[in-house]
Amino acid sequence: MSSRPDGRAADQLRPITITRNWQAYAEGSALIEFGDTKVLCAASVTEGVPRWRRGSGLGWVTAEYSMLPRATLTRNDRESVRGKIGGRTHEISRLIGRSLRAAVDLSALGENSVAIDCDVLQADGGTRTAAITGAYVALADAVSWLDKRGSLAKKTPLINSVSAVSVGVIDGEPRLDLMYEEDVRAETDMNVVVTGNGEFVEVQGTAEGVPFRRDELDALLDLAVAGCVELAGHQHKALGG
Amino acid sequence: MSSRPDGRAADQLRPITITRNWQAYAEGSALIEFGDTKVLCAASVTEGVPRWRRGSGLGWVTAEYSMLPRATLTRNDRESVRGKIGGRTHEISRLIGRSLRAAVDLSALGENSVAIDCDVLQADGGTRTAAITGAYVALADAVSWLDKRGSLAKKTPLINSVSAVSVGVIDGEPRLDLMYEEDVRAETDMNVVVTGNGEFVEVQGTAEGVPFRRDELDALLDLAVAGCVELAGHQHKALGG
Amino acid sequence: MSSRPDGRAADQLRPITITRNWQAYAEGSALIEFGDTKVLCAASVTEGVPRWRRGSGLGWVTAEYSMLPRATLTRNDRESVRGKIGGRTHEISRLIGRSLRAAVDLSALGENSVAIDCDVLQADGGTRTAAITGAYVALADAVSWLDKRGSLAKKTPLINSVSAVSVGVIDGEPRLDLMYEEDVRAETDMNVVVTGNGEFVEVQGTAEGVPFRRDELDALLDLAVAGCVELAGHQHKALGG
Amino acid sequence: MSSRPDGRAADQLRPITITRNWQAYAEGSALIEFGDTKVLCAASVTEGVPRWRRGSGLGWVTAEYSMLPRATLTRNDRESVRGKIGGRTHEISRLIGRSLRAAVDLSALGENSVAIDCDVLQADGGTRTAAITGAYVALADAVSWLDKRGSLAKKTPLINSVSAVSVGVIDGEPRLDLMYEEDVRAETDMNVVVTGNGEFVEVQGTAEGVPFRRDELDALLDLAVAGCVELAGHQHKALGG
Amino acid sequence: MSSRPDGRAADQLRPITITRNWQAYAEGSALIEFGDTKVLCAASVTEGVPRWRRGSGLGWVTAEYSMLPRATLTRNDRESVRGKIGGRTHEISRLIGRSLRAAVDLSALGENSVAIDCDVLQADGGTRTAAITGAYVALADAVSWLDKRGSLAKKTPLINSVSAVSVGVIDGEPRLDLMYEEDVRAETDMNVVVTGNGEFVEVQGTAEGVPFRRDELDALLDLAVAGCVELAGHQHKALGG
Amino acid sequence: MSSRPDGRAADQLRPITITRNWQAYAEGSALIEFGDTKVLCAASVTEGVPRWRRGSGLGWVTAEYSMLPRATLTRNDRESVRGKIGGRTHEISRLIGRSLRAAVDLSALGENSVAIDCDVLQADGGTRTAAITGAYVALADAVSWLDKRGSLAKKTPLINSVSAVSVGVIDGEPRLDLMYEEDVRAETDMNVVVTGNGEFVEVQGTAEGVPFRRDELDALLDLAVAGCVELAGHQHKALGG
Repeated sequence: MSSRPDGRAADQLRPITITRNWQAYAEGSALIEFGDTKVLCAASVTEGVPRWRRGSGLGWVTAEYSMLPRATLTRNDRESVRGKIGGRTHEISRLIGRSLRAAVDLSALGENSVAIDCDVLQADGGTRTAAITGAYVALADAVSWLDKRGSLAKKTPLINSVSAVSVGVIDGEPRLDLMYEEDVRAETDMNVVVTGNGEFVEVQGTAEGVPFRRDELDALLDLAVAGCVELAGHQHKALGG
Repeated sequence: MSSRPDGRAADQLRPITITRNWQAYAEGSALIEFGDTKVLCAASVTEGVPRWRRGSGLGWVTAEYSMLPRATLTRNDRESVRGKIGGRTHEISRLIGRSLRAAVDLSALGENSVAIDCDVLQADGGTRTAAITGAYVALADAVSWLDKRGSLAKKTPLINSVSAVSVGVIDGEPRLDLMYEEDVRAETDMNVVVTGNGEFVEVQGTAEGVPFRRDELDALLDLAVAGCVELAGHQHKALGG
Repeated sequence: MSSRPDGRAADQLRPITITRNWQAYAEGSALIEFGDTKVLCAASVTEGVPRWRRGSGLGWVTAEYSMLPRATLTRNDRESVRGKIGGRTHEISRLIGRSLRAAVDLSALGENSVAIDCDVLQADGGTRTAAITGAYVALADAVSWLDKRGSLAKKTPLINSVSAVSVGVIDGEPRLDLMYEEDVRAETDMNVVVTGNGEFVEVQGTAEGVPFRRDELDALLDLAVAGCVELAGHQHKALGG
Repeated sequence: MSSRPDGRAADQLRPITITRNWQAYAEGSALIEFGDTKVLCAASVTEGVPRWRRGSGLGWVTAEYSMLPRATLTRNDRESVRGKIGGRTHEISRLIGRSLRAAVDLSALGENSVAIDCDVLQADGGTRTAAITGAYVALADAVSWLDKRGSLAKKTPLINSVSAVSVGVIDGEPRLDLMYEEDVRAETDMNVVVTGNGEFVEVQGTAEGVPFRRDELDALLDLAVAGCVELAGHQHKALGG
Repeated sequence: MSSRPDGRAADQLRPITITRNWQAYAEGSALIEFGDTKVLCAASVTEGVPRWRRGSGLGWVTAEYSMLPRATLTRNDRESVRGKIGGRTHEISRLIGRSLRAAVDLSALGENSVAIDCDVLQADGGTRTAAITGAYVALADAVSWLDKRGSLAKKTPLINSVSAVSVGVIDGEPRLDLMYEEDVRAETDMNVVVTGNGEFVEVQGTAEGVPFRRDELDALLDLAVAGCVELAGHQHKALGG
Repeated sequence: MSSRPDGRAADQLRPITITRNWQAYAEGSALIEFGDTKVLCAASVTEGVPRWRRGSGLGWVTAEYSMLPRATLTRNDRESVRGKIGGRTHEISRLIGRSLRAAVDLSALGENSVAIDCDVLQADGGTRTAAITGAYVALADAVSWLDKRGSLAKKTPLINSVSAVSVGVIDGEPRLDLMYEEDVRAETDMNVVVTGNGEFVEVQGTAEGVPFRRDELDALLDLAVAGCVELAGHQHKALGG
């Protein structure tokens, strides 16, 4: 069995740090670190919902993912300078938004909107899963903020916690929480979003080159669920639970 | 158990039609129909590869997905008029491209590029999976075209066939090949891309509202693999096999 | 006198086919073929008119023209990918819209809008004139749809039928309905839009290289009017007349 | 017979002024006035031609038309601020470019490019025809500039002069050179581009509302040819002929 | 001491010409010339203010700066064609707007907006300062126009006149009103906006290469204030004062 | 005399912190804090220079400024989402770039480029001046990195240090280093960029409402120079001097 670049066991997460309230002005914020991956998540509350949703009594939660130009080994051009958002950015923003909405009873939220910005300050693999995991913490604080103001339609909009982790097969071995060096070598790469009680919100598996078998898929899902349980613990602790 | 809008069994595909060479000028083309869903797939070959790939000896395969404004029940604005491509379009184009590349030995393709355009002429659910399934047929003909011109680096670039199908849970029942009316009601929605020998290229499952359990996931994967085997038969037949 | 690539007489149209209701969801649609040129026309009705027209009691009719990337011999980039619509596309869309509005009494239409999408699936010359001719059929069905719903302000919004054809001078010979191979060689190229009773809606003649004389212009107008009379017959028949 | 707003006869041009060399830096320039319509035309020469034309031995001539925001009665937003060029602007720029190319033997021009900017400083109808007429003067001076530098492939690239004028039917009366107040009321509106020896380069006639008969078309063409002969005289005089 | 390209003294302005009411339709307009630099300034009045300002009782003044493609020695691409406005254009437009707002008591203006377009027809250095100086004249006429219509909230919205001039250090010598040839050689370049009674609205000094000392800064400010006093005289005279 | 929101003296900076090498991958980076204002500056080196500069033997230094959506009290839309960069962002990016180039002997840099990204993570006024001050530290480290690789044309490209600070008049009192609450109330606002030996690189003063007198300008310049001397000390210390 091959050893990992940072000496971790195949089923071991990187060191996880969640710094709550990193930004002074947001209604909820967290700087989350999965090893050298650092994502700043900020939740912004606005009264009201988009036009197409008005009068429904339901709230709305969205996310925007972005990466600083020099979060990575070599510099990437800004999407604002290129004048359009790339396909990868769109795809990840949509994934984060869907995942967070699975955590929320939108009727309890009332006609309020929460926008979560996930800005990757440093990228060493797993940025989208770190973003989801950190965004949940920011969202939870934004919901508390609404609660304190008496703006919720019902008491408990948060029906699940959600966290996410990447898993993959490298040199035939299923591994948890890939760092960048592993990610580029993975034969199969999967991002899994799991609720606090171990059910699935999203499963996105991709063969990089060689298609994967059902037994590999099963092993990866096992790893991911175990990793997300651990991440849920970190979220709980960060939120003072 | 609830019955389906068109009376199909839960594990039954809609009528599948593949009209090969629908367009006169493309190096490969197919009009594929999954019931009322109609997608026109056209493969365009160009010599050479994008700049970042030159000198690698490897070919390249990409896809672009789009929908006519009135493919759907109500008209959608053109992305060319809005001046930018939406997140959903980007995401599907990337999925189709990745799926097709899993069918190809890019070193056998040589430094040639194949661009597959998948234009949805009519949409009744499952457009992305129909697009992948039809695009494979167009791709196979484009590869034959290259072969006849003696432009391949090695004889057999096509190492797998790929097809795709949607599956979902509606009223608690796992179903194969969702039509639009089912798609909007699905609790869980999954698109699965499978090779001709039953291995996975992509698994993309999303909880719409309620998270899903491992046993539901397993049932959906079983349905999808069986459906894709059937689709591989249609592809084989269309290609004169 | 030189012979035409497909053996037609100088004053002969290509085979014309109009398949009414090709798309299932549009309020009116037609797939029109001028030989190998195939254009899908779909009419979409919306209640109300653009802001600048509100309260006028008048309806509005617009058109958008587009071409699939591989409608042509070599692939063209999508305008949605380039992020802007080219000058040629704009110009043709405006021409189609103006031509259709000449067919309609906008006060009888009431404050309803009809948007006609003309998507070229295959292009062998004369795409804009085929689009106008097919769009009229889609428009007529959309008007009937409004009539059945009781949404018209007066009974007969259709005051003219309109059809269009290209004419040109090749090797000194005036010819009707140019195919692509002729179009690129034409010394003079003219698109003419004519009502069902032989009056002009648009005349757009361009010298490609050598300016043209008044007698050449007259000969081309004669050809075009005769061709449009024949096209009006095809429209009438397609509409069940 | 109805009288015109400025008391002109139906076949009379507005006062025409051409100020040659209005801009100090362009290789050719002219401020042209058709009554209150003022267009500044500037010709810029660059060595070489666009990539798709290299090695052909042929030159290239293009034009760009634009209007200052307050050239008109009410202010229009800048196209640079809106971030895209409107359909009308594209269409007119293409018309001017085609018209000028009809004046030039591109093989005599050699692989040089001339770009003509036509900026409307004040607009009282007929801006596109004034632009063509003025642009010819700027083009002629740019060709002389190339000649003096010894950069032409053959001696006489200018094979025709071109000028343009609008004509239209107002209250049933065919009129020459419409001012804005007439233009908005015209039943039929036609822009005609004519060479110095009275042949046609472009004929663009549009029914505004009511289709037009062949005899009306003929009367408008007669007016336009006579008007362009007069404009050719103004061009000749401005160029010191 | 080095002599200037046009023989002026170091503290001398170029010949200044202000042609009031150059455009027929604007509520105020002026063609201003600083030597060979020519800028057309047009003020457009609209009732009401931008949404974020409504109900404030305050008016609004903005400016847009642009340059014709061939205002300069070599042609520049149009920003409308490039599809976006460059940083320099934005910066100058904002500067002109701020400078003009310093001339106006926005509460006296009432909820009216004045947009000033400054289009550079010919550029020989100092275009932004000429634009500010000319824009003030157009603004003053637009304010009079509002006054005559009885649309002002109070009688005297114009509390200052503003004019602007560039100064710079060339070969160690501080000079007033740089022409292009001097501008490119300047070690330090400063644009100064001054009110009619000699107070500062904007001071923008930039070291081009070598940082500048406090005594150089002081000398430049002295020159600029003297120049602006002279420009204020030209404005006063143009406005019939 | 009015007291400041945080109790500082009028000539006192906020607490300044510079964390060198905050980002792991950039050739130079610094997180700079002016009180609650936090800007992350990252320098990226690339071999070669933009096309227009090739063969000159000179290097190039640019900067891009941006703000996270929730750096501020209320959320701002991303410029990447809006599809274009605002005027303010352009203006600040250009200012930072010019300021840094004043620090560098570009001939000593050789044909290498340094791009400095300044991303505002939290904004409490003075973000552009904090960005310049922090960017210098990142630039210095990028130059050392080039030196260690032997890529410099001459030994000492850094000829000056540069730092920047805002000053302004609030309630008639000139103050150093304005925080947001002061910035919005300032009558005059000035950003000053100063070299390590007290000479000026940029002076940008703006009257907000009331024009300012020469003696006020002088007082602000005195404050700014003193503040920048102190900032130069912080830079020196951060760089291990």
